[in-house]
Amino acid sequence: LTPHSPHRRLGVWLIGARGSISTCVAYGLAGLREGLLEPVGIATEYEPLSRLSLASLDDIALGGHDVCMRDLSLSAAELVKHGILSSDLVAASAPHIAAFETRIRAGALDEPDVGVADLDPRSARLGGAPPREQIARIAQDIDEFRRELDLRRVVVVNVASTEAFRHELSEWSDLDAFERALDTGRSQPASMLYAYAALTSGCPYVNFTPNRGSSPAALRELARQKKLPHCGSDGKTGETLVKTVLAPLFASRALRVLAWQGYNMLGNRDGEVLADVSHRETKVKNKNEALRSILNDERLHTHVGIDFVPSLQDWKTAWDFIHFEGFLGAKMSLQFTWSGSDSCLAAPLVIDLARLADFAAENGEAGEMLHTASYFKAPIGGGSHDFHAQFDALVAYAERHLAPGRSRGASRERGSTPRA
Amino acid sequence: LTPHSPHRRLGVWLIGARGSISTCVAYGLAGLREGLLEPVGIATEYEPLSRLSLASLDDIALGGHDVCMRDLSLSAAELVKHGILSSDLVAASAPHIAAFETRIRAGALDEPDVGVADLDPRSARLGGAPPREQIARIAQDIDEFRRELDLRRVVVVNVASTEAFRHELSEWSDLDAFERALDTGRSQPASMLYAYAALTSGCPYVNFTPNRGSSPAALRELARQKKLPHCGSDGKTGETLVKTVLAPLFASRALRVLAWQGYNMLGNRDGEVLADVSHRETKVKNKNEALRSILNDERLHTHVGIDFVPSLQDWKTAWDFIHFEGFLGAKMSLQFTWSGSDSCLAAPLVIDLARLADFAAENGEAGEMLHTASYFKAPIGGGSHDFHAQFDALVAYAERHLAPGRSRGASRERGSTPRA
Amino acid sequence: LTPHSPHRRLGVWLIGARGSISTCVAYGLAGLREGLLEPVGIATEYEPLSRLSLASLDDIALGGHDVCMRDLSLSAAELVKHGILSSDLVAASAPHIAAFETRIRAGALDEPDVGVADLDPRSARLGGAPPREQIARIAQDIDEFRRELDLRRVVVVNVASTEAFRHELSEWSDLDAFERALDTGRSQPASMLYAYAALTSGCPYVNFTPNRGSSPAALRELARQKKLPHCGSDGKTGETLVKTVLAPLFASRALRVLAWQGYNMLGNRDGEVLADVSHRETKVKNKNEALRSILNDERLHTHVGIDFVPSLQDWKTAWDFIHFEGFLGAKMSLQFTWSGSDSCLAAPLVIDLARLADFAAENGEAGEMLHTASYFKAPIGGGSHDFHAQFDALVAYAERHLAPGRSRGASRERGSTPRA
Amino acid sequence: LTPHSPHRRLGVWLIGARGSISTCVAYGLAGLREGLLEPVGIATEYEPLSRLSLASLDDIALGGHDVCMRDLSLSAAELVKHGILSSDLVAASAPHIAAFETRIRAGALDEPDVGVADLDPRSARLGGAPPREQIARIAQDIDEFRRELDLRRVVVVNVASTEAFRHELSEWSDLDAFERALDTGRSQPASMLYAYAALTSGCPYVNFTPNRGSSPAALRELARQKKLPHCGSDGKTGETLVKTVLAPLFASRALRVLAWQGYNMLGNRDGEVLADVSHRETKVKNKNEALRSILNDERLHTHVGIDFVPSLQDWKTAWDFIHFEGFLGAKMSLQFTWSGSDSCLAAPLVIDLARLADFAAENGEAGEMLHTASYFKAPIGGGSHDFHAQFDALVAYAERHLAPGRSRGASRERGSTPRA
Repeated sequence: LTPHSPHRRLGVWLIGARGSISTCVAYGLAGLREGLLEPVGIATEYEPLSRLSLASLDDIALGGHDVCMRDLSLSAAELVKHGILSSDLVAASAPHIAAFETRIRAGALDEPDVGVADLDPRSARLGGAPPREQIARIAQDIDEFRRELDLRRVVVVNVASTEAFRHELSEWSDLDAFERALDTGRSQPASMLYAYAALTSGCPYVNFTPNRGSSPAALRELARQKKLPHCGSDGKTGETLVKTVLAPLFASRALRVLAWQGYNMLGNRDGEVLADVSHRETKVKNKNEALRSILNDERLHTHVGIDFVPSLQDWKTAWDFIHFEGFLGAKMSLQFTWSGSDSCLAAPLVIDLARLADFAAENGEAGEMLHTASYFKAPIGGGSHDFHAQFDALVAYAERHLAPGRSRGASRERGSTPRA
Repeated sequence: LTPHSPHRRLGVWLIGARGSISTCVAYGLAGLREGLLEPVGIATEYEPLSRLSLASLDDIALGGHDVCMRDLSLSAAELVKHGILSSDLVAASAPHIAAFETRIRAGALDEPDVGVADLDPRSARLGGAPPREQIARIAQDIDEFRRELDLRRVVVVNVASTEAFRHELSEWSDLDAFERALDTGRSQPASMLYAYAALTSGCPYVNFTPNRGSSPAALRELARQKKLPHCGSDGKTGETLVKTVLAPLFASRALRVLAWQGYNMLGNRDGEVLADVSHRETKVKNKNEALRSILNDERLHTHVGIDFVPSLQDWKTAWDFIHFEGFLGAKMSLQFTWSGSDSCLAAPLVIDLARLADFAAENGEAGEMLHTASYFKAPIGGGSHDFHAQFDALVAYAERHLAPGRSRGASRERGSTPRA
Repeated sequence: LTPHSPHRRLGVWLIGARGSISTCVAYGLAGLREGLLEPVGIATEYEPLSRLSLASLDDIALGGHDVCMRDLSLSAAELVKHGILSSDLVAASAPHIAAFETRIRAGALDEPDVGVADLDPRSARLGGAPPREQIARIAQDIDEFRRELDLRRVVVVNVASTEAFRHELSEWSDLDAFERALDTGRSQPASMLYAYAALTSGCPYVNFTPNRGSSPAALRELARQKKLPHCGSDGKTGETLVKTVLAPLFASRALRVLAWQGYNMLGNRDGEVLADVSHRETKVKNKNEALRSILNDERLHTHVGIDFVPSLQDWKTAWDFIHFEGFLGAKMSLQFTWSGSDSCLAAPLVIDLARLADFAAENGEAGEMLHTASYFKAPIGGGSHDFHAQFDALVAYAERHLAPGRSRGASRERGSTPRA
Repeated sequence: LTPHSPHRRLGVWLIGARGSISTCVAYGLAGLREGLLEPVGIATEYEPLSRLSLASLDDIALGGHDVCMRDLSLSAAELVKHGILSSDLVAASAPHIAAFETRIRAGALDEPDVGVADLDPRSARLGGAPPREQIARIAQDIDEFRRELDLRRVVVVNVASTEAFRHELSEWSDLDAFERALDTGRSQPASMLYAYAALTSGCPYVNFTPNRGSSPAALRELARQKKLPHCGSDGKTGETLVKTVLAPLFASRALRVLAWQGYNMLGNRDGEVLADVSHRETKVKNKNEALRSILNDERLHTHVGIDFVPSLQDWKTAWDFIHFEGFLGAKMSLQFTWSGSDSCLAAPLVIDLARLADFAAENGEAGEMLHTASYFKAPIGGGSHDFHAQFDALVAYAERHLAPGRSRGASRERGSTPRA
């Protein structure tokens, strides 16, 4: 275990670099550096994860791809209007954001969306090119980022919009078959091309989206072959998070869940994309799967709705109704309303995952990062969906890797809510 | 580890035998015997707890004390009217209930309530008698129950109403001092006299109420001296249960809880008693304590309200509002409404605890049953209030005690919601 | 204005006589006669409507059509199980229900449902017969009911399930065209055949369903020609009722509603039928229309979901989320959860409407009963959807028709919630 | 009816000029003048009220009293932070606000608060002075405001914090007695001194607070004597507003409300003041009274809680639970969560009321403005609490006073939600 040089920074390459999650990551890191923010929500800044030798938040450099051309400052102005970012923070972060902006390149648009969306023409062109050509361009952009900033390592994180659903292709189950398919030029999901490019460029890969990314067996084989850690998919930020916290209660108490109805409303770009049925399919499947796996009752009646409500903007609101039966046949209910800023919930998880992927690579760990399951709706590698069981696994991982020399005094206290 | 005789039954002595929890325990056990009910809510009937050599549900005999004289059939008729019990169940259970009824004795009314409530005059008289006299009468009733039914063991379970709050007396911290105080005749909470009588009669003791019971150091010393297991206090059935499931989420995700407001409404006898401030104090303290312990943030703003709403009868409804801060200072909220029949939620826990206390005694375990913490708002012996951590401890206990010979096929599957 | 003979009863002919609304009407009237119930929910029993010379609740005789064969006692047993009816009430009502049961005839199944549903074969046969034949049979059944019980008048009330949506046919806009279409044997919605049969038999007609019934111009012409009053459609019992009470608030206060999302869950036969998109269409349209009409803002984002959740049985639960903007651009929200027994909410409205239709006929009023708009989601004759404006119109109607000689002392007080 | 000169402005004198309602009034009027805002929430800007000859929003000049010294720009900065005001609006409004700031004078602190709060020492001194001296100073400040700006008329509006409860004094029932009490120097609520000063200075008076103000008979006599219109008290902005919209539904439908529990949480200065029981009493009384008056059932169980939750700041959140009984004894519920910015809800009502008071004075109307009842929790002059009935009365008033010559085209459409 070689300690990394303190003088070379960690690069985080964001696919979807102009989206609201990336915007929150960028302004958040800037705000922390400028002393305007506390690291609330970044679990790796609190005990016990903070005791791992993770890359410092001050040593993270950002770059990325996007398929649209909108200035980050425009996204930021919108988030100010929606009450997410403060105008003081935006002003103070300007130099950091300008630097990030210069490191954003035109990405590859997923082929089914080519011609549909009003986006960067270079992305549309690239999305229509043969897969091998797309991969080469992606890899080249990442390499330039690494070289220009003399980065110690680059972690690639996919925070792009949800892709249209595609049925599984036979070549996804085997790396050789996938390589051949790439050679023949058969169209593949952009998220898989990004994952392929990342892994072949020596970058750990994090898939925060419900897209295929590195989940298919072919890509998982590639990660093992390249001895690189990766994780995903579909960040667990809101309603599903609460679901996987509450559902184990019913199982533990032997209460029978009769119906679990979940209605999600969201108003940002994510909501707009998910308003389309073909883009919604994977997301709904992931949300349902988690519940069924925990409750393990084939009679369970469950429904997940996702509706686009533009006026909500980034404030996702979800209502869940849980109908359950207790002793003596009594029918009872629990209902909850979740109201949160999706981007503010996602951004700190992206930071955590980039640091954990870097740490795993530093430790020579390859393949699925099973200890990160608590971050995802559909963890690669499977396992329990019970949030507490997943989080316990993360704590156990941290305890196994604790740097004995690290001073406890310097880090935050475990298991407590953050303090000022 | 000596297996118990299959021919001698387990006695469960209920303090508050005419209350709605006891009524649900009695009708529930009768319904299970008559094949009219499934054991939904009785966790000890499902994997992995079902694999322990616990007393069979068919082999439980009920008796108890109460301070009121109302027929169980009247309580049952009310529960039918409130939609808790079905009239079919009540009809089919009549012989079992009649037998139970003959084994209910006048209990000791807590002294501050003597003269206040319109109850059994014998209970009022007994409540006014010197403590030693009360203890002797309680012990005598339990002994008769054991001898008459030739019971293998009697577990005493307190499911009575909440007592008026009393400031801690110095004699509670030490058994000798407590014995001397009993000798002098100083008034003590009825719940402590019951606990004392149970333990000195050789009975494991379960305190499902927020009353003092066996929680003070003097009684805990007595349990150890008598080599008896005991547990409590304040059954975790509803809003606090959900609280201790949800609160760890915020701690794990490093989200800062700004305010947690909980409003409870209940309409049964429990609600009526708690409408009085002096009776409410302990309950509110227990509810608050659990939250503060998990979130561990002295700035947390929290409030617990308990209001009596007669029309709700046994259907407790609670609304919690959780205001929290995430990354970038975003303020978000989670609110939930819990609507449950308190007695239906409590009754299976009482059955679980009686079986677990019997099992612990059978295994020669003495003192606080730390593995039952998930059942209580204020677990004797302390420890984490995190429900999942508490339940993990119970599962670990079960795994340590698993009867290797027991057929897995015969029991229900672990971690799943109950099935028909 | 000739006072009706006190010795001859009012007949109410229920289409859907075995459904849960009819069951609640029948047991409710029986319970009132037996002194087991109060008339809670029957607005015509309270001031000021109670001061009209309406048919006495004791003088209502029930009969009807249905397309299924299930015994009313089976429906009642289910409602007992779901906590809607008490078993005492069911027992005491038995003779009344038995009499009603003998007066239920096989109705005409709507043609698109012939062959789909597992129902009374006579109904399926009748539903496949030429329209004129169906009408003749329906009319004959109603006539027999009137003659056998020597009824003063029969009011026909449609409380059947929602029919599959059909596009408007040209013949619906004109009575002559409709008559010719009946002659040619072209298939028509069963609800229109019932309405036609009722009106040609001299019966006032109430359409409590979202089905076409007497709403098309052809039938409205028929009612005027026959000098009969009629009203409908789609009883306003739950979520839409609350909507039309709340929405005017936003209009009055000049607050801008940005989005109004409504999610309905129901578990009874109605829910099962509405789970099918073709049957759901009209209902959703009616729910949306009411809101749009009150808020009158073409930018309003609104969505109505209806989901079948079997475990809820007759307990309809709806969650509405209202996002609105106030002064200074502040975005605020109001959310509500409605949890009600649909049949218990509908049954008293059916009783009110039958009495009001009888009263209108008695007074020689013909055509649309505009004063009953507050009872419907899609009032025939249109007008405001604002519940309070609609109710004011009903009160004004009552005030115009007040029987001066009627003793005020005998009736309940106006504008108060019912008392015991 | 003399039309007012278009060249002389209307003065609005705000008692509590530095509070958040006043801040929202001031920035709101500035934003409207600068074209940055729409008049959403100002009902007098929409049909039919907009057709009255009301003072133009551009012609309102602000001044006022306060007992604290905090700069308006500080209050505004806080409202920006809480997401109420946008920083653009604050910047553009600066000159208007600076002008307002120069016209704020030290007010009279209510005597029970003298010495308690950390406020403007001049206000504390004035609050301790004899009543006649306080009145003289208040009147002098108002006069200067009128003269310096050559105002056509000054309307005085009380938007100060809730005063401590005081039992009714005998002199409040009679103007002569009150005058004598003022002469003797007996301490009176500050709100009554302000009302006295306003009316004796010839100013119409609006009491937006739950304080006594002009409600006592003595002050009402004074208003009539001075031929001045006045209205109040306790602005109906949030939970009570929804209550008085929903409660009539239950009365109209003859549904029996069993319990209505309302829990209010608020975090601004108002919440802080109301956290004190003596200050809370009047508010709770007003909230309860409205409900009882509409439902008119002495058995109704009702509770109103008000809790201070600092993190909510200006965002008031309330949860109401309504338990009701329908036909057949079915128990049902409606619950709602209201989440609104109290100041944004109150500010446009203050603007409406100031204009309506000016209009009434212009028309020579004196005494209680009964047509403004929809704006208040405890309308002076009593009458129905039913919001829709109250609003109908306002519309009827407007229709009686419509200026026939006013072009309809220039005003907004009636009964619709505001448009962009």
